[in-house]
Amino acid sequence: MTDFSFSLIKKDGKARLGKIKTAHGEIDTPVFMPVGTAATVKGMRPEEVAELGAQIVLGNTYHLFLRPGHELIERLGGLHKFMNWPGPILTDSGGYQVFSLAKLRKITEEGVSFRSHIDGSKKMLTPENSTEIQRALDATITMAFDECTPYPASVEVAAESMRMSMRWAERSRKAFIERKGYGQFGIMQGGMYPHLREESMKALEELDFEGYAIGGLAVGEPTEKLAEMTGICADLMPEDKPRYLMGVGYPSDLVRSVVAGVDMFDCVLPTRNGRNGNAFTSEGTVVIKQAKYEEDNSPLDPNCDCYTCKNYSRAYLRHLYRSGEMLSGMLMTHHNTAYYQALMKTLRQAIVDGKLEEVATNLLKTIR
Amino acid sequence: MTDFSFSLIKKDGKARLGKIKTAHGEIDTPVFMPVGTAATVKGMRPEEVAELGAQIVLGNTYHLFLRPGHELIERLGGLHKFMNWPGPILTDSGGYQVFSLAKLRKITEEGVSFRSHIDGSKKMLTPENSTEIQRALDATITMAFDECTPYPASVEVAAESMRMSMRWAERSRKAFIERKGYGQFGIMQGGMYPHLREESMKALEELDFEGYAIGGLAVGEPTEKLAEMTGICADLMPEDKPRYLMGVGYPSDLVRSVVAGVDMFDCVLPTRNGRNGNAFTSEGTVVIKQAKYEEDNSPLDPNCDCYTCKNYSRAYLRHLYRSGEMLSGMLMTHHNTAYYQALMKTLRQAIVDGKLEEVATNLLKTIR
Repeated sequence: MTDFSFSLIKKDGKARLGKIKTAHGEIDTPVFMPVGTAATVKGMRPEEVAELGAQIVLGNTYHLFLRPGHELIERLGGLHKFMNWPGPILTDSGGYQVFSLAKLRKITEEGVSFRSHIDGSKKMLTPENSTEIQRALDATITMAFDECTPYPASVEVAAESMRMSMRWAERSRKAFIERKGYGQFGIMQGGMYPHLREESMKALEELDFEGYAIGGLAVGEPTEKLAEMTGICADLMPEDKPRYLMGVGYPSDLVRSVVAGVDMFDCVLPTRNGRNGNAFTSEGTVVIKQAKYEEDNSPLDPNCDCYTCKNYSRAYLRHLYRSGEMLSGMLMTHHNTAYYQALMKTLRQAIVDGKLEEVATNLLKTIR
Repeated sequence: MTDFSFSLIKKDGKARLGKIKTAHGEIDTPVFMPVGTAATVKGMRPEEVAELGAQIVLGNTYHLFLRPGHELIERLGGLHKFMNWPGPILTDSGGYQVFSLAKLRKITEEGVSFRSHIDGSKKMLTPENSTEIQRALDATITMAFDECTPYPASVEVAAESMRMSMRWAERSRKAFIERKGYGQFGIMQGGMYPHLREESMKALEELDFEGYAIGGLAVGEPTEKLAEMTGICADLMPEDKPRYLMGVGYPSDLVRSVVAGVDMFDCVLPTRNGRNGNAFTSEGTVVIKQAKYEEDNSPLDPNCDCYTCKNYSRAYLRHLYRSGEMLSGMLMTHHNTAYYQALMKTLRQAIVDGKLEEVATNLLKTIR
């Protein structure tokens, strides 16, 4: 079995073409990871996700911890077998969801106690048990447990929060059981303050993670702030490890972040928007319920060759959406996932060709 | 282009092996037709439906008339193109749904006026416009417009209802535009009264439809009554035309009805029950939410080789169902559709082998 490794193959400006090798397969970067919250990428078969080019999916520790439970998944053979996805899986630490979904949460130095949003039961997540849950799930990439600093936050609040996350990162690292081909990523915090981001990155580097993530962005700040902070954070990160921008984002965010030197992304947008009838296309957003598509016999995206665009009209997709049909979410999610994967392929090829700046500039003229 | 034809290939007792040839392809009978109410078999891609062995699907005139409208579908190239199903499509006449779904309906000799269950708009269905709607949809098999006699009904009510349906059948037949490879089926009514069924069948035969259906069963009568009346009706039907038992049924109903000489079936059970977490299996019904499946790593049906059974455990399917995941409905519907298609294949093979009685007896010991 291979070691967990990252190879930097080529650079184009700050952008990086790379390859991550793991126990469950290789990942070509820059990469977008479809989100499989509750052990399923909503509305898609796993083979479909893979056929569209995805080499890794994300699972949510918070959700799987609460239902069906990591111990059950471990007894059943791990998350890969459970959800029929043999490829690499990255699990988040549960930190983000515990702040956005759980009830009556209480943060102490030890961790976060809360009540389940499903049944109200009392639970706790700590750096140690978050790491253990992710091991039980058999996550290829484990994330350190952190607090996602809210936005906006004063410098004092951001500093305090970041420093606790760094102490938690150390405890997470200690709790991580090394296995060949598995890795653990540390998460940089520090809000919108470059000096705190720098302090955070230094703390993480001392723990020598297999990769580093930028946390605490895409939390409500303006697009320009996201782009600016992404650039600042990426510049602080070591060259020889994968760089993961968590929870981002719109296609245009991905383009700008790849240009800034980020390697990995995840976001619910392509799947959630697909279910809600919104498509990302080469011509911008298509809101399929709009009356103008009533008799539109053209494909969702004339420049896309995915299953949805090859076989169905906008008129049909509008009908399915208005009728509340499952196939609506299935076909729209398929297209959006195809769109995101095709975009990442375009960006990787642009780096190979040394033309990323040109390609990115053109893309940013039309996409959302 | 081929004529619309039915060939009776072999008989085994009263059971019949046959082949229907149509403008859109051939149909091996006995056949089960998955229901594609609103131009989609809920939760499935059309290719998936075909791969499982289905050669014809059903569309609902009532639903498509109200949304998105038959004229729109005609302008967009017909239902086959609209829903990406190039094979044969049978459309019902709208008669059944107008009685079960529409509001403020009023029946006159002319037809049924009602208010749409979707937006309350005033609509009317008559033998003439039902036939025209089905033509506009490009239905391979058009059904005559009828009144589904309720159960129970007195002999007077059943007779009056049936006789109106026969007058409507004549008007439907007159309104049908012949096209090579297309057919129209008349629907027998008469409630639970054999002499009325006989009168109905005679009236229909004079109109020389391309096939005949048994209507007004599976409307709440006990299973034994359904079986008894199916046998009586099938015996009244001509040998040289397809016989279609509408809206039936459970797997055991299909077995008994094939033995009685019925060729065609449709029912929402496999798809609806799939969405509701109930599976038809070789070992009986599996209600996937039950706690006993929590750690069950075995497939939904150990004797099934469908995609769902090859790749997922009951434990995973239970998790998906409890989590309200789309993939739950997708995988369960896939299995149920596979189950129904495999059952029909088994029955056809049993007729080929001249062993239907033995096969049916064995099946009826275990299936629902």
